[in-house]
Amino acid sequence: METLADIGEDALIRRLVRGLKLDSSVIAGPGDDCAVVKGSQEPLVLKTDTVVEGVHFTEDTPARLIGRKAMARVISDFAAMAATPRHALITLIAPPYTMVRRVLEVYAGLRKMADSFGVNIVGGETSKGNQLIITVSMTGTAANQKWISRSRARAGDALYVTGRLGGSIRGKHLRFQPRMVEAHWIAKNLPLQAMMDISDGLAQDLPRLAAASGLGFQVDLKSLPRTSDCTAEQAWSDGEDYELLLALSPKVSTKKLEAYKNAFPKVKLTCIGQLVEKQNASVAPAGGWQHFRSA
Amino acid sequence: METLADIGEDALIRRLVRGLKLDSSVIAGPGDDCAVVKGSQEPLVLKTDTVVEGVHFTEDTPARLIGRKAMARVISDFAAMAATPRHALITLIAPPYTMVRRVLEVYAGLRKMADSFGVNIVGGETSKGNQLIITVSMTGTAANQKWISRSRARAGDALYVTGRLGGSIRGKHLRFQPRMVEAHWIAKNLPLQAMMDISDGLAQDLPRLAAASGLGFQVDLKSLPRTSDCTAEQAWSDGEDYELLLALSPKVSTKKLEAYKNAFPKVKLTCIGQLVEKQNASVAPAGGWQHFRSA
Repeated sequence: METLADIGEDALIRRLVRGLKLDSSVIAGPGDDCAVVKGSQEPLVLKTDTVVEGVHFTEDTPARLIGRKAMARVISDFAAMAATPRHALITLIAPPYTMVRRVLEVYAGLRKMADSFGVNIVGGETSKGNQLIITVSMTGTAANQKWISRSRARAGDALYVTGRLGGSIRGKHLRFQPRMVEAHWIAKNLPLQAMMDISDGLAQDLPRLAAASGLGFQVDLKSLPRTSDCTAEQAWSDGEDYELLLALSPKVSTKKLEAYKNAFPKVKLTCIGQLVEKQNASVAPAGGWQHFRSA
Repeated sequence: METLADIGEDALIRRLVRGLKLDSSVIAGPGDDCAVVKGSQEPLVLKTDTVVEGVHFTEDTPARLIGRKAMARVISDFAAMAATPRHALITLIAPPYTMVRRVLEVYAGLRKMADSFGVNIVGGETSKGNQLIITVSMTGTAANQKWISRSRARAGDALYVTGRLGGSIRGKHLRFQPRMVEAHWIAKNLPLQAMMDISDGLAQDLPRLAAASGLGFQVDLKSLPRTSDCTAEQAWSDGEDYELLLALSPKVSTKKLEAYKNAFPKVKLTCIGQLVEKQNASVAPAGGWQHFRSA
């Protein structure tokens, strides 16, 4: 079985980029100092995200799912802004004794997820390191200047989440579907004020959305849509749900919420509370995922 | 002394982005799911690059120089295409016991280098990991559709390098100046066919440029411009020079080469050989830096 040390960098890169699907927006793909793609007058949306062995996946995680997750996380961030991802760069860091086959399978996972959302992988970088790390850097666009911030919510806005929360570690964190279609539908059809994706857990991410808008929040833990066999506390604290958290104007009509339900019968939209002036915030229990913090 | 584990992710990010300089092209900087910048009809140029502790720097490397190097490497890639870097995302991976001060100094180095080339740091990502790793993802533009590939050289083109080669490990690898001004001048004034930056050593990078153009090369090792106290073999094999390697049409006039010398008296441009049809290539000694290869 071949390792990265056996074949070296150039041969590895040749194998990684073989048969990459690139659409007509790509002027120069892998193989030069930089990639070159067509410009656009629309705002350019940028995001980078990383998955690290021992943090976001384990030695035993199937390699395709590592790649899938690395790509899906960034696509989820684009969904959270109702933006459209277009061009990705991949950074691979791996120990020299890593099996070539494992890396190729990581890339197969990256590519399949990229293809399903119309994303071109246009370049990347490799280096040796102590553990397997995949970083995906993405550029995309916001059509018609329309993109959704975290920071434009107002006191009185209703808080909603898509899907169900909690227990992602059992498998969803590797197999979640970025809420891209739902996000674009919501941005188009509902009075959407602010949105983000829930990657570190509602307990971490809701305070971030509220703070970005200069607000506090009130949440009814009993109202949280829970994954089966999860407690309300797990729905509140567990990380990596990759569902959408959104603030809708309180004027949102029942009719429009019904239309959502008809459009997405399998991904429910649940009201979990509201945004309020800071002094009216209810104290929430601690939880969620904090990088660097000792547990 | 505080560590990352003491302050946690949100407080770290607040400190990293404090006082960031952003120009009017930035619509939304750090603090949202993605960054948003103004679009452009000009081609979009993309690059990501990473520096890893134990590979590109050591535990003893001053933290500012780690950040400086991480940013300068990517800027050098933009120089190599005669493109202009504009917006950067930073991925920081670090062990939880890392001193906060060390990370802030890495960012000071990143920011100073970014500022000096007009680059906005618009976002990023942090995660814990086993070793310190900085990844810089950059987007920029190629003005007037003009950018320089590796792959458009022709047989008979003369090969030139900027500056002096070899011995970068003594310090230049941390303090090199990306050849941005020189690259744009050359692209504008000389009959430039192909260009790249020399990051893994001429022994690795020249074959890449030749292969990208479907050619071979002939190099006179004695002609290589050497750093003082370096042998020709070191100039050929050592990595991390970050000088430019370029192919000029053989029609280039002495007058234009004189004009270069007058414009950049401190960064000389030296002819080192030529590109030839593959069957005429001279065999070169092995060398240069190969990621993953056992030494």
